[in-house]
Parts: sequence; structure tokens; C-alpha cells
Amino acid sequence: MPRNAFSRRSFTSGAAAAALATPVALSTSGATVTASDDKPQPQPLGEIKRITMYAEAMPDGQLGYGLEPGKPSIPGPLLEMYEGDSMMIKLVNNLDVEASLHVHGVDYDIDNDGTPMTNSAVPPGGSRTYVWHSHTAGTRRDGTIQPGSAGYWHYHDHAVGTPHGTGGVRRGLYGGLIVRRKGDKLPDKQFVIVFNDNTINNITGHGPDFTATLGDRCEVIMITHGEFYHTFHMHGHRWADNRTGMLTSVDDPTPIIDNKICGPGDSFGFQFIAGELVGSGRWMYHCHVQSHADMGMAGLLVVTNPNGTVAGTHNADAMKATRDAPAHGSHDTN
Amino acid sequence: MPRNAFSRRSFTSGAAAAALATPVALSTSGATVTASDDKPQPQPLGEIKRITMYAEAMPDGQLGYGLEPGKPSIPGPLLEMYEGDSMMIKLVNNLDVEASLHVHGVDYDIDNDGTPMTNSAVPPGGSRTYVWHSHTAGTRRDGTIQPGSAGYWHYHDHAVGTPHGTGGVRRGLYGGLIVRRKGDKLPDKQFVIVFNDNTINNITGHGPDFTATLGDRCEVIMITHGEFYHTFHMHGHRWADNRTGMLTSVDDPTPIIDNKICGPGDSFGFQFIAGELVGSGRWMYHCHVQSHADMGMAGLLVVTNPNGTVAGTHNADAMKATRDAPAHGSHDTN
Amino acid sequence: MPRNAFSRRSFTSGAAAAALATPVALSTSGATVTASDDKPQPQPLGEIKRITMYAEAMPDGQLGYGLEPGKPSIPGPLLEMYEGDSMMIKLVNNLDVEASLHVHGVDYDIDNDGTPMTNSAVPPGGSRTYVWHSHTAGTRRDGTIQPGSAGYWHYHDHAVGTPHGTGGVRRGLYGGLIVRRKGDKLPDKQFVIVFNDNTINNITGHGPDFTATLGDRCEVIMITHGEFYHTFHMHGHRWADNRTGMLTSVDDPTPIIDNKICGPGDSFGFQFIAGELVGSGRWMYHCHVQSHADMGMAGLLVVTNPNGTVAGTHNADAMKATRDAPAHGSHDTN
Repeated sequence: MPRNAFSRRSFTSGAAAAALATPVALSTSGATVTASDDKPQPQPLGEIKRITMYAEAMPDGQLGYGLEPGKPSIPGPLLEMYEGDSMMIKLVNNLDVEASLHVHGVDYDIDNDGTPMTNSAVPPGGSRTYVWHSHTAGTRRDGTIQPGSAGYWHYHDHAVGTPHGTGGVRRGLYGGLIVRRKGDKLPDKQFVIVFNDNTINNITGHGPDFTATLGDRCEVIMITHGEFYHTFHMHGHRWADNRTGMLTSVDDPTPIIDNKICGPGDSFGFQFIAGELVGSGRWMYHCHVQSHADMGMAGLLVVTNPNGTVAGTHNADAMKATRDAPAHGSHDTN
Repeated sequence: MPRNAFSRRSFTSGAAAAALATPVALSTSGATVTASDDKPQPQPLGEIKRITMYAEAMPDGQLGYGLEPGKPSIPGPLLEMYEGDSMMIKLVNNLDVEASLHVHGVDYDIDNDGTPMTNSAVPPGGSRTYVWHSHTAGTRRDGTIQPGSAGYWHYHDHAVGTPHGTGGVRRGLYGGLIVRRKGDKLPDKQFVIVFNDNTINNITGHGPDFTATLGDRCEVIMITHGEFYHTFHMHGHRWADNRTGMLTSVDDPTPIIDNKICGPGDSFGFQFIAGELVGSGRWMYHCHVQSHADMGMAGLLVVTNPNGTVAGTHNADAMKATRDAPAHGSHDTN
Repeated sequence: MPRNAFSRRSFTSGAAAAALATPVALSTSGATVTASDDKPQPQPLGEIKRITMYAEAMPDGQLGYGLEPGKPSIPGPLLEMYEGDSMMIKLVNNLDVEASLHVHGVDYDIDNDGTPMTNSAVPPGGSRTYVWHSHTAGTRRDGTIQPGSAGYWHYHDHAVGTPHGTGGVRRGLYGGLIVRRKGDKLPDKQFVIVFNDNTINNITGHGPDFTATLGDRCEVIMITHGEFYHTFHMHGHRWADNRTGMLTSVDDPTPIIDNKICGPGDSFGFQFIAGELVGSGRWMYHCHVQSHADMGMAGLLVVTNPNGTVAGTHNADAMKATRDAPAHGSHDTN
């Protein structure tokens, strides 16, 4: 998904320049208010990234966020930050209805909630700057741990169609947000996979295909939206069911899984090595709910050998059989 | 939910007095039978709490458990104990149908199962004393760990309507049970949130609102019942996906989440600091399944400043828009 | 489920003999290809088990895998291996349609994917040998952990009815696979429980009953298939929500649960001590989705005392009430 990439690595060279804002602006935001009984330790100030995003309609009636006018995408730009960083995102609403930006996982004061209920959505033709903070883990005065912000999170509209953004989310106003911890491994490839109603990334009838070279460190950001529960499954690859998808030791008792139930608003992520111990091939990923797979909630992770070849054979007709199935109709189950 | 509070702290001062039963009564219950091959270590005897609960109908046709006759509530009383404690609960059935008390998470012999299948439900007008035990963690003879009882559990009817209590649960016969481990932090505020079919705490069209002061240590006991899956989401606050909702160290790899899929019979709990790093405000919590949110499965956590003010503004119309939506009808999604 | 047992313990004495294949055969399979940047440490070669499985129709129209012709079962044989072991499974397809064997959790190259999309299904009347590998945990060159294969996994058809095997899975073509880690405790009893659509192990209207003696170390392999989400609940018994179901220390913060949401393709397992701290009895396990329980997704774990008696009484009518309910019709919920 290079068109959506907006990663830490490429940040400083991206079309949207990151600018440093003064600490003063932050200290007046009210977002760093802390209860006196549980004041966490002072934290080093991270980067402050300032970007502009545009909410726009696409020719087919879907909606997308983009980093430049006229270039909306579904999912929207993949945003990344390190614990301690802040983002100031100016949302330009080029739709003809109120829209917003609501985020999961990071810190924002109530005026940055991004919902009609808090009067923090953006009217048609208007703009608003949302401020998100993040923080490292620390120990509170009472000895409990204040968790850091690191995680595979996401953002989405919370205003179009209904005050919960049902119409905006359905039509594509969503994207991924990664907050990394210092020392987290960086991936070679990133795949954002959103199960939204009975589509993947709002594509009906088949999922997007992804490519990697044998041995690439791949990162999946998996988000669920809409109405239905799903089970995310990958062929030939697995991950640990924790914050990073990676075990912390060979004795770590975290379950290793290749299938995970998820519902709207959920997000998780993990890294895996493409083709590790299984080799090159066209590896399917799909929703394991049978009717969802049959109506096309399936895509390929194509792992190529270093010489460009791909192991195995591919039966496009079999893949197509499900992709051509009526999306919501009955199907022959023998 | 002060009316439902029945916590460790308030126990000895509550209307229902806790009485000590003799150890003899326990030793004849048969519930402490242990397999000879895996006998756990002897455990210190905890408190024995004796209370009476009443299953009763409410004027609107719903059902509730209460600690006094004529005062049923939904959810029922929040019960608390420490690992090692026992509870002897006399259930007085003031309904005109068989009802029962079935509990998750703690120890009870088969005669305290609280189901028609084990002849342990209560006939209309009758009463029955259910005995629940709990225990601390220990090491079995074979070296494996016997987990302690600590957890965010719950109890519910298992007899009204069907032998699985479908009618009783639907109409409100459920409540929370917390088993704490010695040393667990005690909260300042407790919120019991039950997603039951498409209601929260059997309230149709909107969720209950909760209040806390900035910096309060709040505890959520989240239970799901009925027919549907849900995703529990909080704005501006997060928790660790483990037993307590709190990390054990800054390096703990447990995922931090603000959205969790849950299904009937599930329960979990966590503590968080009200407004930590985000400040005062009217913070929404809601089911993130879009149609569920739109039909009103949403409420507010109102975090006030110490001086009584609340940050931000509130658009009651936006909140009301969903709350007035037909609970099971179609909705405009733009 | 002795008829399905194909455990490590009984392997060498089973009807299907395990044969050693030469390492050469494995090294040409392509499945051990490893990315040069992340080559894991060399691993000791485990056992290579060679078995034959038959996909066959049953008189009632259901389908099953079996270890001998004419003896299909639902679930299919419970397969077990230790990390490092390989399995070479010759699938003989005695159905009149294409069928396959797709596995979760272990290593296989793309030609052993077991799907029509990779041309690795078996035509009617044909056979094909699937090769599965497993591996121990290790540390990659970059310092990250390569997880071992240990887990409660499963296998299923991925070809009958639709290219995702919707018809095959629905009619019974599935089974459990356990990969153990050296040192894992072995159980006394094993129960494979598959929630498949609204049946347990394809039995409509009631679940299978299981038996154990007080103190037996029991192992549940829980798999979900089909279309619906479920919540797996056990009365009187609990487990840790991790790889083994057992805590690693008395301070382990892993949640202890007795109810877990699961969706198609999910699998988990755990061990528990029959009747520990609760004694003998007819303990129910069931799906906690109310309508699912009411239509009979419930069975018994009968824990007998050493002298053969069973504590408590059993109301067969109450159990039967749900079991006789129409499987997909409406039910009286009072």
C-alpha cells in the first residue's frame, strides 16, 4: 500500500511536511492535565507532527481521507508516531455533510474527541485541527503502571450518516495509526487490512493482494468496522496474541494464533517474516466465517523468491469462483 | 451505582449483615473435596459472608435481584469477596416462576449449580441458600499452578423462561461479582455495565451515565448477556487486556486496548484513572457495532474537575438523535 | 472420545503405523526454506509420522475423516505431535467430489496448502500426501523470537461445496491437532468440542457427554466452525486464557476465565482437574449465547467419584426441554 504509506521512515520526505510546534501550544491545550494523586513521571517531549488531511468523495460514491486534495484513499493514510510524539492534524472537510476525525488509543482532550456529541466535528467546507498526544509508560505515585501509548490503533469518522459515523465508516472514512515504542522493530512491508461490513478495505467481492519477498519483515495492521464480527485468518503464517505480535522470550506463554475473532472498533497488529519456514507462494488471508470467505473476503499475500519466482501454482478460477459469487446471496454448499 | 454497591468496603455496614458461619458447615458441604493426586496446599480460611437476595418483579415487568424485599435493581447488587472468602446467599424467590442463582468463576458443589438440570433452582415462593467458595492460588503436587479465584465475574438466573434462564437474564436477573486478590488496588468508583441484547443494563435507547472526579480510580465491571456479540469501547481511556486491566511492569507486553469484543456470558473488568492525560469531559462509552451505537447503546462518563466544572461542550441533540432512533428499525446512514 | 484418539501415547501402538521417512525426502520438499536474513538456529530433527486418512460419507449424509476405510468420525482423528515432529498424511478421497486437508498452526509449503486455489485438493477417488512440519522456538539473527509450533490447532476440508470448504466443514470434515512442547503435561482425558454452526460436533439438539474421574487431568480442544460466533462456557471449572490454559506462576496476571467468545477458524485448548475444589457432579458445558443453549448446544461433563458414584441429582427433563426444542425455531423465553 505505498500510496497510503505515511510512516515514520518516510515522514520527513513526504509531501506533507512535519513541522515543530512550540511546547507552549501543547501546555495550553489542557490535554496534559493530570490528577494530582497520580502524577506520572515527567516525560521527554517527543516530536510534534503537523499534517493536513482531506475528507473527500470519490467518483464511485465512496469517501476517503487523503494527504492531498483530490487524492482520497481507502484506507486513509497510515499514520505513525513514537510514544511521546504528538500530531496536529488539520482536517479539511470537502464533503457536503459534517465529518470528523475520531481516534483510538492516544490522548486528546474532550474538544478533540471528533464527535457531534462534543461539538468537535467539522461542518461541510470547514476545517479543524485535531491534536493527539502520546506518552511513554511510567509508574504512578501509587505504584501502579501507567501504560504507554504504543499499539496498533486507528482513526475514523464519527459524524457522517449518524452521530456515530455509521455512514462515514461504511463508505471508507477510516485509517490506521501505529504508535511505536522506542526499540520496536521496524517492518519492511506494511499491510493495512480493514474488514468493513462484508468488504476488505471497501472492496466488494475480493480482497486486495499484497506482495513481499521471502524473508521480508511484514507488518499487518488489522482493523474491523461496521456491523459484523469476523475472524481474520492467514495461511502459512502465525503471530503472538499480544501488543507486538512477537514473543518476548522462547518461554513466553502467549498464545500463537493464525485466526482471531474481531468486531467493529477492534484493531490489532503484528509482524511476521514472509515465508518463514514455509517458503514462497501465494498465501491466502481471509475471513474464516464461511459465508464471508465465500462472498470474497479473501486476498493473497504473494511471497516471491529473491529471484522473482513464486512457488506453487495458482488456480485463478477457484479464487474467482468465490469472488464472482453474489455478495449477499445464497451459495451452493454441496 | 451507589444503590447497587455491596462492596468489601461497605459490607459490614450494609443493611444485610454478614455473619460468620462455623467452619463445620463448610466442611460438610462437600465442596472442598480435592482429588488425592493433586491436593493443593492448605489455605487460610477467609471470611464467610451470609446475605439474603430477593428475586422480584418490577412494575414495568422487568426482574431484578435485591438485598431487601421490594428493592430489586438491574443489575443486581455488586458482590465482592477476597480470595479465600465464602458467601452463603439465601435466595428468596418472590416471582411466580422458578428462578435461580448461577455464578461464574468461584467454587460451588453441584448442588449449588443453580440450574433446573441439577434440581438447584428455587420454586416460586421458596428460598434456597447457595454456597460459593473462593481460594488463593497455589501449587499442586505435580508442580502445576492452581489459579486463584480472583477475577471480574458475575451471577445470573439459569431457570426463568428456559432451563438456561433466557427469560430471566433478558428481563434483568444478573449482577457482578468481584473476587479480589490480597493487595489488589481498591477503586474510588465502580461502574457495572451490562450489554444485554441491545440494551445497557436493560435500559433501551440510551446507556446509563456515570460520574467521577478527575483523578478518581474507576473500576468497570463489564458483562455481556443475551443473544448478540458486542464491542465495548471507551473514549479517551484505555486498559490492559489482563486480569486486572493494569500492567505489571512498564515492559509488560499485554495489549493496551480501548475496544473489546465480547459475547454472552463473558465478563471482564479493569481500573483506570478518570481523565488521566486527557482531562475533564463528557466521555462516551458505547458498543462499537454501528447499529448498536445508533440504537442507543451509548452512555457518558462525566469526569468533573475538582472545582465541579466539566470541560468541553455537550450536544444533547446529537446524543439524543441516536437515543430516539427506533431500537430495531433501519437507520439513515447517509 | 477413544474412537478418535490418535495421541502421542498411543501412536506407536495404533492401527496406522508411524513410519520414519528419510530426512532426504524432507529436504527436497522446499518447506524448510528460510530467509537468509533471519535464519533460525538449527533444530534437532523430530519424529516423522506417516499416516493415512480417508474422507468418506456417512450413512446420514454427513462426512468424516477416519484412519481406516469405512470408519469416518466427526470430529476426525485427534492428531498429536511434538515441536520438531513432522507428519506425512496420505489423504484418500472416497467422496464423489474434490476434498482436501488444510491445517492451522504448523508449517507446510504452498503445495501442501490443501485448497483448490493452490491446486492442492484431492479429486474424487484420488489421494495426495500432505506434509506438515513443526518446530521449536528459537531466536532469529535479529534477536527476535521465532515462536515454536506448540498450540491447540486443527485441520479441515477447504474444497467441498465451495473453494473455502463451506460444505465439507458443515458436514463434518474437521478435526483437532495438538502440537506439544517438550515438558508439557500430558492429560488423562481428552475432549474435542467443535461448535459448528448450531451443533456441537455436528450433533443437532444436544452436545456429546464426556466422563472423567474426580482428579483426572482433562484436556479440552475447542474448535469453532461455520457461520456463527459462540461463547464456550463450562460450569464449575475454569482455565487460563493462554497457550496451555495453565498459569506459569501464582503471580501470572493472565485472566482466568470460564467463558470465551470464539468464531469460525478459532481454536484453543486447556487442561483442568476434573472436579477440583467442586467435587463430583454432572457439570454442564454449553454455548452461552442464549438461543444456542436453548436449541441444545449443551452437554455434560460427568465427574464420577473414585467409587463410581456421581454427586448431585440430574433433571433429565430440564436438560431434555432444550434438547427437544426446534433447532432453528423460536422458543418461549417467558
